[in-house]
Amino acid sequence: MTLPETVAAPTAPSFPASRAGTQPLRLHPERFFDADPAIRRVAVQLYEETAGLPIISPHGHVDPWLLATDDPFPEPTALLLTPDHYIFRMLYSQGLSMESLGIPTRDGTPVETDARVIWQRFAQHYHLFRGTPTGVWFDHELHELFGVRVKLTADTALTIYDQIAERLASPEYRPRALFDRFKIEVLATTDAASDTLEPHKIIRDSTWGGRVVPTFRPDAVLRIAQPGWRAALTSLEAVTGRTIGSYDEFISVLAERRRFFAAMGATATDHAVVEPLTRRCNGDEAAQLFERALNGEASDLDQRLFEAHMLMEMARLSTEDGLVMQLHPGAMRDHHTRVFERFGQDKGADIPVATEYTRNLQPLLNAYGAHPDFTLVLFTLDESTYARELAPLAGHYPALRLGPPWWFHDSIQGMRRFREQVTETAGIWNTTGFIDDTRAFCSIPARHDLARRMDANYLGGLVARHQIDLDDARVMAHALAYDLGRKAYRFDRPHTATH
Amino acid sequence: MTLPETVAAPTAPSFPASRAGTQPLRLHPERFFDADPAIRRVAVQLYEETAGLPIISPHGHVDPWLLATDDPFPEPTALLLTPDHYIFRMLYSQGLSMESLGIPTRDGTPVETDARVIWQRFAQHYHLFRGTPTGVWFDHELHELFGVRVKLTADTALTIYDQIAERLASPEYRPRALFDRFKIEVLATTDAASDTLEPHKIIRDSTWGGRVVPTFRPDAVLRIAQPGWRAALTSLEAVTGRTIGSYDEFISVLAERRRFFAAMGATATDHAVVEPLTRRCNGDEAAQLFERALNGEASDLDQRLFEAHMLMEMARLSTEDGLVMQLHPGAMRDHHTRVFERFGQDKGADIPVATEYTRNLQPLLNAYGAHPDFTLVLFTLDESTYARELAPLAGHYPALRLGPPWWFHDSIQGMRRFREQVTETAGIWNTTGFIDDTRAFCSIPARHDLARRMDANYLGGLVARHQIDLDDARVMAHALAYDLGRKAYRFDRPHTATH
Amino acid sequence: MTLPETVAAPTAPSFPASRAGTQPLRLHPERFFDADPAIRRVAVQLYEETAGLPIISPHGHVDPWLLATDDPFPEPTALLLTPDHYIFRMLYSQGLSMESLGIPTRDGTPVETDARVIWQRFAQHYHLFRGTPTGVWFDHELHELFGVRVKLTADTALTIYDQIAERLASPEYRPRALFDRFKIEVLATTDAASDTLEPHKIIRDSTWGGRVVPTFRPDAVLRIAQPGWRAALTSLEAVTGRTIGSYDEFISVLAERRRFFAAMGATATDHAVVEPLTRRCNGDEAAQLFERALNGEASDLDQRLFEAHMLMEMARLSTEDGLVMQLHPGAMRDHHTRVFERFGQDKGADIPVATEYTRNLQPLLNAYGAHPDFTLVLFTLDESTYARELAPLAGHYPALRLGPPWWFHDSIQGMRRFREQVTETAGIWNTTGFIDDTRAFCSIPARHDLARRMDANYLGGLVARHQIDLDDARVMAHALAYDLGRKAYRFDRPHTATH
Repeated sequence: MTLPETVAAPTAPSFPASRAGTQPLRLHPERFFDADPAIRRVAVQLYEETAGLPIISPHGHVDPWLLATDDPFPEPTALLLTPDHYIFRMLYSQGLSMESLGIPTRDGTPVETDARVIWQRFAQHYHLFRGTPTGVWFDHELHELFGVRVKLTADTALTIYDQIAERLASPEYRPRALFDRFKIEVLATTDAASDTLEPHKIIRDSTWGGRVVPTFRPDAVLRIAQPGWRAALTSLEAVTGRTIGSYDEFISVLAERRRFFAAMGATATDHAVVEPLTRRCNGDEAAQLFERALNGEASDLDQRLFEAHMLMEMARLSTEDGLVMQLHPGAMRDHHTRVFERFGQDKGADIPVATEYTRNLQPLLNAYGAHPDFTLVLFTLDESTYARELAPLAGHYPALRLGPPWWFHDSIQGMRRFREQVTETAGIWNTTGFIDDTRAFCSIPARHDLARRMDANYLGGLVARHQIDLDDARVMAHALAYDLGRKAYRFDRPHTATH
Repeated sequence: MTLPETVAAPTAPSFPASRAGTQPLRLHPERFFDADPAIRRVAVQLYEETAGLPIISPHGHVDPWLLATDDPFPEPTALLLTPDHYIFRMLYSQGLSMESLGIPTRDGTPVETDARVIWQRFAQHYHLFRGTPTGVWFDHELHELFGVRVKLTADTALTIYDQIAERLASPEYRPRALFDRFKIEVLATTDAASDTLEPHKIIRDSTWGGRVVPTFRPDAVLRIAQPGWRAALTSLEAVTGRTIGSYDEFISVLAERRRFFAAMGATATDHAVVEPLTRRCNGDEAAQLFERALNGEASDLDQRLFEAHMLMEMARLSTEDGLVMQLHPGAMRDHHTRVFERFGQDKGADIPVATEYTRNLQPLLNAYGAHPDFTLVLFTLDESTYARELAPLAGHYPALRLGPPWWFHDSIQGMRRFREQVTETAGIWNTTGFIDDTRAFCSIPARHDLARRMDANYLGGLVARHQIDLDDARVMAHALAYDLGRKAYRFDRPHTATH
Repeated sequence: MTLPETVAAPTAPSFPASRAGTQPLRLHPERFFDADPAIRRVAVQLYEETAGLPIISPHGHVDPWLLATDDPFPEPTALLLTPDHYIFRMLYSQGLSMESLGIPTRDGTPVETDARVIWQRFAQHYHLFRGTPTGVWFDHELHELFGVRVKLTADTALTIYDQIAERLASPEYRPRALFDRFKIEVLATTDAASDTLEPHKIIRDSTWGGRVVPTFRPDAVLRIAQPGWRAALTSLEAVTGRTIGSYDEFISVLAERRRFFAAMGATATDHAVVEPLTRRCNGDEAAQLFERALNGEASDLDQRLFEAHMLMEMARLSTEDGLVMQLHPGAMRDHHTRVFERFGQDKGADIPVATEYTRNLQPLLNAYGAHPDFTLVLFTLDESTYARELAPLAGHYPALRLGPPWWFHDSIQGMRRFREQVTETAGIWNTTGFIDDTRAFCSIPARHDLARRMDANYLGGLVARHQIDLDDARVMAHALAYDLGRKAYRFDRPHTATH
């Protein structure tokens, strides 16, 4: 092995090259735990008790058609690389064009189509992922799912490609078979308000017993100043067979849709905003905003006020239909306009912004934060709010639970920071356990495994420092890996939906 | 022991329950130190040298009547639970009503009055405090103060209750006896500008030698737009026998009151604001603001400007009377309106907000930051300011000292973050040592013990990494535990007050 | 040794004084590495492989005349203390006057001139630097450069002074000899847009082979509302022999100057702003702003808009002339007006402010962030942006690289936080390696040594936790210590300048 190609030849005394040839890929059984033996000993014990627990996946972006049709997965590049913006954003940041990685253009301009060429390019730059969670997850998939036993490099790329391709062709690698093998107890997808939930129906009507539930995400119909709003509203009319000519009809349709989602097994809604402003409109202000939107006249400020109001309404409806409300603020979407225009959304160019919760959420929490049948799960991309705002809020309001570190932060150090900055004020029981938030189905076990390791390691530290004893730690490890997520998202409640 | 009741029974392979029956409560002598033997060895040595030092408690909320009358403490629930918002906020956050915990309502609506029932409820949920400083402090009190040797659980709750109640009835558990046993060298209370300091007089006139000093906290008379302002001003007139008809009279009365506090042993003032804006009013702007306040016409903006001006004035008066100025910004008080309306202040619903210091404090620091007889002790609830603003400011201005991690942040990880983010820029000598800030008298030793352990551990890390040597570390440990607080709050100066 | 004088004598059981007399100064070979043996073992190995690599110093403030004339350094105080604001700000913060430390006044008011007296004062307060990077660097210089083997204290101060003075008189301690001994491969200075680069010419024309290159820093001519702007512009006219009567001429002159700097070896520009706003002016708005500036009528808002526009222009010119663009936002300069008025700039009173990057940089990154021949190196004084904004931006935009922790943050814990908060999202290959940013020439090896140790320690942690293997870590250590800086600042490219 030589120096990666992105590093120029030094004039310094030349670096002693690593051993040439094929290197073994090993996953150390005690990986990611602190090196300290006292911590590691406890962490290993706690991890061993939770590693085999079923996976609760209450929030993610897996395509439900995958499990509805149960078709075989495509070849490795289409499965593992081109859909994963964690991967291609990093390659892009180091000068590889999106086109060379086979990312499809919106206008159909041709891009690289040779899957093996793309895979080779990725392998040549795989060193970029050293020290990142993507690298950790990917090695886990290679080793555990596909039985790869050599490190991915330019030399080994195509051999590994062929090995994965061969596996994918076998029945054991069909989506439903993997779902069962992954021990997924429940998997929630994310679905537009106007979605027919057709794949969910197919799954429920099948003989397969896997629990796949939808999540109600109405963002598109709430962003009244966006170019796509009218189309989103039309879709909503189409799927319900109702006309939406007023704000009251709009609310009524949303309530109906929420009930439909619940009947299809949903236990939660999901809401993404830039700023988590909550504020109830006065009088007929909401109706006027909606009217302006129907006339194509809604401004950015109108949308800001409408979204703030609709978060209040979504919370109110949750107190009626029991759907858990998830709020994910703080991402400025599509920061790179040229990339968006050429390749569309979700291309690794969503960038966080500083986020304020204390003042923004006060109206919603004052109205519903102590409601006995309301749960709000809150996320952040701004870690400075963990100890300052989120933990104090969650340590008071009964309805509030903190979602786990999310997106850029569900990493080894990110998970450590979350526990260290949240637990001392809010405890663990005001948090929900892990969500994987992934569209990469095959990475689900890797992600949950990493989270369970990091939680075991955190608790191992508490035991090694004699803050808690091992009995306490075992209960807490179990709660973090399984109980808390199951309870927060109400998967422990009897499912009342008609089947 | 079974899973806590807040966790639903899993469908996963059931969790192996902890051993049933009574579990021993042990405080490990090396608790809270890093697991690493090299760090722990030094930390233990440093801690052993500081553990027995007298306690300097320059800022807190203990009721001075406690030590004036020296009456026995009430039963355990009224002593340890109902006054402690750290405890009941967490129980409330997990769905226990304030009423069920015996928190009195403002309108007298009945709440739970059976102290044993409340204690039992707390014990059933004691697992919520695992990994929190409240849990650490409470175990310390149980073990060290009350001799409890079994873990607090639903099973052991009432036995422990009776054991504490029995102790509280004995003379050794009277407040003054505990004060002496705790080795408190000085305890500062927090007192309104209009306070008569009657209990402080009683203590000074008694034969008991404990040093209990007041702190001048004029917040109520500075918040000119608050409903309670007029009443606060009237109290100030009543206690001084003067009428306050103008801004000049107001300043004159405040200066008089400060001198009275100083004569009664006070060495400091204390100021809480949401935003630490400082700005001197021009011309007669301050007088006009005060006039509007007297007419009941002060707006929120008026108050903002008046508070900003009064911080300048308080600093100016400090340069005259030598009282150390403390500034605690960043808490949005009574975030949960319904809780405030029903139960009042200090119910665990004060939530921090992001705080700016660099620009806000510039006027005050430019005017008084290099004054030879001025000390400003600064606190924060926004940890992101430690390394960014506070340490650079304290590393320049001679008058500025940083108070220790405060409120939500005087925890194990919180204290670690403070030292790690402050020391490299400001050193330790620009910090003040620990304050406990507590109204829970019995928790004072637990809090100082934890702080001394964490400082010893921090220094142990510096020694183990060979940043400083052991000789240096010993001086620094002593300074952090004792010297710095004593000096910053001027308890080392001869007391000039008439007695 | 007794307690430092800033700590009052305790009434507590008196602290056992350290051993009296002279204490040895030792630099532990494994200093600053984690105490954990598994981490330290790897860290030591990685450090040993990078410790001897040449130093790349692409950003700093060493005076190039030093190396142009190669005159002997002055005595110790003038070399090591009075020019170093890291040192005297800390002494000032603890009550020592600037005058007593020999800091020259702007109006010539006399200050302490006895170098030995100043050195003695510093030594008496050297304990203030315990746990700070300044203390670490200074001990390194004393031990490694000057052969001091006793700790600096009041007792040893003058002996050490004499020892250093003696060394400075010898030819081996001339600047060029030290440059070679330090193994500096390239040293970049920082130079005003109007600089003649006379010392750089002298160095290039000399027989000495050291590579010293200028950096183009045009801040002074971009701050159109500052009192000194007109004079800065006049200097620019003088050095180019051109008149600058319009915005177009201004841009033309800047482009010419940039080409001159590049011809003299520069590979980079540098830009300091408070807020990193970027925004291209519309139409002739820039010309109008410039016109107002020429008329002495530019407002603060005008300057804000002009600077935002000029950052766009500087990026555009970089795509033409290939100079790497550095951006250092977030410092509020000269916070303490009295200190500025009496002693001038760079007196330890520059204080960071919270900084926003996501929205501010969007225009610049949209325009040039994917340009194949553009590199933007970004710095911050607001660590809360590492994980929230900077790492996500660098993990997407091909032109963006993150500079290392800077100023207050190039410390042991500061470097740890940087790697832990940046790497998981951006990897190491989107960072540039270390810059020392120093005007203290003799501290360059100490600063790079500390950085190499901290990077080795970070990688040691990854290996010990089995995130990467040792082969990976060795390549990464080499990259961080040498390759990344050399490549990001384009020192690996053939030098096209005429000589």
